[in-house]
Order: sequence, then C-alpha cells, then structure tokens
Amino acid sequence: MGTIYFDNNATTCTAKEVVDKMLPFFSDFYGNPSSTYNFGTQAASEVDKARSRVAGLLNSEKEEIIFTSCGSESDNTAIMSAVTGFPEKKHIIISSVEHPAIRNTVFFLEKNGYRISQLKVNEKGMFDTDELKKIITKETLIISLMWANNETGTIFPIKKASEIAHKHGVLFHTDAVQAIGKMPIDLKLFKDIDMLSLSGHKFHGPKGIGALFVREGIKFSALLHGGGQENNRRAGTENVPGIVGLGMAAQLTLKELKNDIKKISVLRDTLEKNIKENIQRIKINGSITNRLPNTLNISFKGIDGEALHDMLNAKGICVSTGSACHSGEGSPSHVLTAMGIDSKTAGSSIRFSLSRYNTIKEVETVTAQLQEVVLGLRKMSPFEF
Amino acid sequence: MGTIYFDNNATTCTAKEVVDKMLPFFSDFYGNPSSTYNFGTQAASEVDKARSRVAGLLNSEKEEIIFTSCGSESDNTAIMSAVTGFPEKKHIIISSVEHPAIRNTVFFLEKNGYRISQLKVNEKGMFDTDELKKIITKETLIISLMWANNETGTIFPIKKASEIAHKHGVLFHTDAVQAIGKMPIDLKLFKDIDMLSLSGHKFHGPKGIGALFVREGIKFSALLHGGGQENNRRAGTENVPGIVGLGMAAQLTLKELKNDIKKISVLRDTLEKNIKENIQRIKINGSITNRLPNTLNISFKGIDGEALHDMLNAKGICVSTGSACHSGEGSPSHVLTAMGIDSKTAGSSIRFSLSRYNTIKEVETVTAQLQEVVLGLRKMSPFEF
Repeated sequence: MGTIYFDNNATTCTAKEVVDKMLPFFSDFYGNPSSTYNFGTQAASEVDKARSRVAGLLNSEKEEIIFTSCGSESDNTAIMSAVTGFPEKKHIIISSVEHPAIRNTVFFLEKNGYRISQLKVNEKGMFDTDELKKIITKETLIISLMWANNETGTIFPIKKASEIAHKHGVLFHTDAVQAIGKMPIDLKLFKDIDMLSLSGHKFHGPKGIGALFVREGIKFSALLHGGGQENNRRAGTENVPGIVGLGMAAQLTLKELKNDIKKISVLRDTLEKNIKENIQRIKINGSITNRLPNTLNISFKGIDGEALHDMLNAKGICVSTGSACHSGEGSPSHVLTAMGIDSKTAGSSIRFSLSRYNTIKEVETVTAQLQEVVLGLRKMSPFEF
Repeated sequence: MGTIYFDNNATTCTAKEVVDKMLPFFSDFYGNPSSTYNFGTQAASEVDKARSRVAGLLNSEKEEIIFTSCGSESDNTAIMSAVTGFPEKKHIIISSVEHPAIRNTVFFLEKNGYRISQLKVNEKGMFDTDELKKIITKETLIISLMWANNETGTIFPIKKASEIAHKHGVLFHTDAVQAIGKMPIDLKLFKDIDMLSLSGHKFHGPKGIGALFVREGIKFSALLHGGGQENNRRAGTENVPGIVGLGMAAQLTLKELKNDIKKISVLRDTLEKNIKENIQRIKINGSITNRLPNTLNISFKGIDGEALHDMLNAKGICVSTGSACHSGEGSPSHVLTAMGIDSKTAGSSIRFSLSRYNTIKEVETVTAQLQEVVLGLRKMSPFEF
C-alpha cells in the first residue's frame, strides 16, 4: 500500500520542476557566487534570478529578500535584528499560538530582561485587535504575529495588526511560513509589514532554505556574522542549489496558486463534509471562515489522537497530532490549549493538511479508513461519549 | 575551452555519489524527521545514519555532532554558545588570520563590551604558543583558532594550543572548515578541543549544510531557538537531503582521504615546481612545512593579482585572490597583511587550491598559461622588478 501524505503543513514534496532546476548546481555549475571569475559570477547571477522570483511571489523588491537556511532562522533573525537595533526597548508582543521558532526566541529573551506579552486568542484561534492596542506600551520593540496558524490554518488579520503596530511606532514582523503558497500575498498592499519569514519546504521547495523579507529602510542587523554575502545581511556561502530551488518553487506557486487554491479547497471541503457525514461527535478546531484552504483540524470525541495517528500510520496515512516541530512530546498542543480547548479534546485532535499533489481518490480512501479506525477505537474505549 | 577549477578552498564540486544519495530525499522520501509516522521516522533514521558518518570522519560520538546550515553558522554558534553560557567572562582570543565568520562575530561582540585579542602570526603565518599563554587572563572565555588557513593552507598547532587553553580553564574552539577533507583529524587524539566547525561544500558535500562538533559534557546554548530538532541544540526542520549528502561526503572522505592526499600533494607539488622553474621573482606565502596538501599561495612580483586572476579567467582557469568570502572588496588580504607582507606583494598573490578531481594535465595547462600571462603582464608593467 502506498503512502497517503495528508501532512503538508509539516513539510511538502519538493516539486519535480524544482529538483530539475537545482540539479546542475551541485556538480556542474558549482562555483561560489562570491568568486569573481565567470564560473562564480554565473552562480551569483542564478542567485540573483532566484531572488527576483521570490520577490515576485511576494510583490516586493528583490533587495528586500535575504536568503536564510529555514523559516526558524528567518524568525530568529527578525526578532534578534530588532533587539540589536533598538536595545532600549524591552517589550515584545506575540500571540499565544505562535510557532516555537518565535515563542522560544522570545522566551530566551525573557530570561535576559525582556518582557513578553502573549496576545490571547478566542475559541476560534482569533485575537481581538482592541486587545492588541491595549497591550502596546512605549517600551514595545516589536509585534510578531503569524499570518496563518500551522495547526488550525486560522488566518490572522495581519493588515489591521500591522497598521496598529505602525500607528504606535512599533516594528511589525509576521511568520508567514504556513501562509506562503496557500494564499495570495501582495506586500505592496501590506505597507505596514516590516519583516516576513518564509520557508521553502512548506511550498514544494527544498528543505534547508528560507527567506526573510525586510522592507527597504528598516534598520537591520545580521544574526550570522562573517563574509559579506546577502549584502552583509547573512554570512555563509550561499546555498546555490537551495536558493535556485526556492526561486523555482516561488515561480511555480505564483503561476499555480489560483488553481491550487481552487483544487485544494475542494479536496479539503470534501474531506470535511465526508467526515461530518460519516463520523459522529466531532469538532472542527479553529476559524471556519478565516482559514487556509488546505487545513482541517478535527477533534474526535473519546479518541486518543496519538492512537488514531498510529492506526492511520499503519494504513500508510500520514496525519499530524500537534505540529511536527513538537510532536512526540506527549503534551497537548499549546495552540489548542491557548484556544481554551480542554486537554482531552485537544488530545483527541488530528490535523489534515493537503497539497496540490493530493487527489480526490486519496480523500475518499482516508475518509473510509478514518471512519473504520474511529469506530474501532470508540468500541474499545472504556469511556462513554 | 572547458573550465579548470583550481579554487577548491572557495568551494568544491559536489561528488556524484553525494548527489545520488541525496536525490531520493527531495521528492520521494520527503517526510519531516520530526513526524512520528513511518514516513517521518524513516527520514529521522537517515539523519541519524548521516550523523554517524560525520562522527566517523572525526572519530567522535554521533551525539557530539550538531547539523547546521554552513561553516559560518557553526562558527557563530560556537562563539555565541560560550557567550551565553559564561556571561561573566568578557575576553576572547582569536588569531589575526581567522576567517571572517570568526572575526566578524567577535568584532560584533567587541562593540558589546567584549575585549578581543588577536594572536599575531609571523611571516610564515604561524603563531607562537608562548605568546598565546601570555595573553590568556582570568577573564578569557574562549580561544578560537582555525585548524588550517583558507588562504595559505598553513596548519596551526591545534593540539598544543588546545592544551594551553584547558590548562588555563579556557574553552577551545577550532574552525576546521578548511582542514576537514584535506588532512586526517581524529578527535579522540585531541581531547582538549571543545568545539569544531566544518562545512559540507568544502569537501565535496553540498552547499547549505555544515556541522558543529560539541564535545560531550561541554555547556552548550543554541543560537537558533524554536523546535526541539538536533536534541534542542539547533531549531529548524532538518535539511534531510543536505544532511544525507554531508554524511555521504564524510564517508567518501574517510575512505579516500589517504589516496586523495597522496594524489593532490603530487599535483600541488608539481604545480609549485613548474612555477618555480618557469617563472622568475615569485614568493610562496605561508608555511612550507605545515601546509595543507592542496594549497599554494604565490606572489608574482610586479603583477597585479586581480589582473592575473582576470586573464586566467579569460582562459577558463579559476583561481583566487584572497578568499572568496571577501573577494571583490579590493583591499589586500587581511591574512597576508597580518603575516607582515607588504600590500604590493599581497596584492600580487594568487591562491591555487586543488581537489581529487583535478588532473596532472590541468596542472600542465595552468603552468603554461600562467607563464604566458605573467610574462605578458610584466612586459606591460610600468614598474621595474
């Protein structure tokens, strides 16, 4: 039995077009882009093209794109750049449902004298912009809010939040790692976003490459010191194949996004409808109206999510309990907990996340298998429900 | 005319065996190693195998290997880990010929209250271990010395230096980015090295992957915060293809190193002999006796190194003036300057660096072309020499 991969918020298959584009840069055109002979400047020119492609996806200027090694590095860099640039401001605002790459960076700063405010979310995973206004102080350095949540797909009101930040003279960063490739993003329409993180492997690019958008004019300090790569903003020999791959993934996304969203929405909505029709006592977590088109987070009452995950795994079906970044920890998802969901319901939740490579046939198979497994587990359960 | 790549200290061709090993992990076995279903744990197991292979190359324990995105990240991480772990010690010792990844990291710290001592080197690029002893104080946090110099190939007495560090209760880090793959390194014989940086693309692995060795028991703090990857020591989804590629490059190196050294030494020594016999008024920079087998740094009196580089480039021959990490800057190499070489001589220098993929035929071609170009440039030169 083949694998059915319904965990595309954890990582994605690198597109064939992306791999094909990367391949010549390993062993044929392997020059160092910092070298000044043709064999090096040719590599530099490919890096430049890729930068334009990533900028094209965001509708930003190419000079505003810094290549990093992953979304986590982009997140760390954004926060630490603000810290280095404005050492007098010691207050940071994030939401209570941010990714660990933001949470653990600011918690590290908390141990070093920073005050961290976590903006609360409601049962739909949404925060109140009035609440955001209230917690900003004159000490606030930066507000960092994810564009879309990795576990529930809930989309934050980033436009309004970034406007509020700027009205109060506060920097605004968004972790858009889960949003890129799943919804259109035009940074010319979001003038109040100062920095944005993205990661290649979340939208069919390779692992090991990411980018940080830093709007022109924003004071920036590098996290990694060394050579003058990335216009002195990120040291280290450029990962040419990775960068070229990221550029290709961006170009593919720009071209296919409209179709992808249409296709993936149908798959996700069919899965949701099938589950609703065939399985009792379920609860969809997160916003229904402001949600990524590929994500479905469901609690199955009376079921242990880990057991469900494992039994689907035995059938070759890949789904997630909590995010992959802290799976295996055994504690209930901090995202669902922050939404006020009790630990039992949180522990019974499964995330399905789809991609352009999934099919309606896979959706039908998953529905059938899921129904069988849930019924079986409920029969074995000592609890009533 | 094909390219003759004599700049293998800048970067190397990714070995075919390495690319072949990486390929399935882009689009077939693309699971996230943090995912707990089989499709994820299989990826985790490949990461684990690669870790053993890198540990095997160094003769370290696999738990002592942390994957990073490059040598520069490893260097930054080593220094910043010491800074975070022992905030009361504010003195750092490096040599005056370190790579920018170390130099610029400690210069950043210098702006933030740290005192930096740069150990002087002599005209052969070598430092005096007695001098090292003298500059250690009770405030000294860490000594970071490169194992082999990227520009001259000079090999530092790392064993003695690390012993001195530990005798004074000081942490010892070595940037071994240029040494790995060019000389045998057995960390069981170097018990006083606490941390060591390496980079995949310097020894026929891919770009975008590196590692930091951290000896068991050494206090360590992560530079990148986020998910629990790398046993909480480096956040970010693992670059599975890159890691697998690095593992394969390590395995190839372990297997081939003895033969490679033999072959490459002959090539380099032939190149050196040819140049000495055919071109007048040259000077070999760096140590002759303690030198990487692949590196040859030569000054050609009366010649502008940039012009020589460009004319060789026009013939498809890739060589370097200064390191690729700060080429194009126009200032003479800080390494040669630190060795007391005057700026004119430094500016007339060229680095040749060879690999297992170079041939004796290439050496002959380069010698002939070099002779022609040097004679031509000297004829045009307005200076007497």
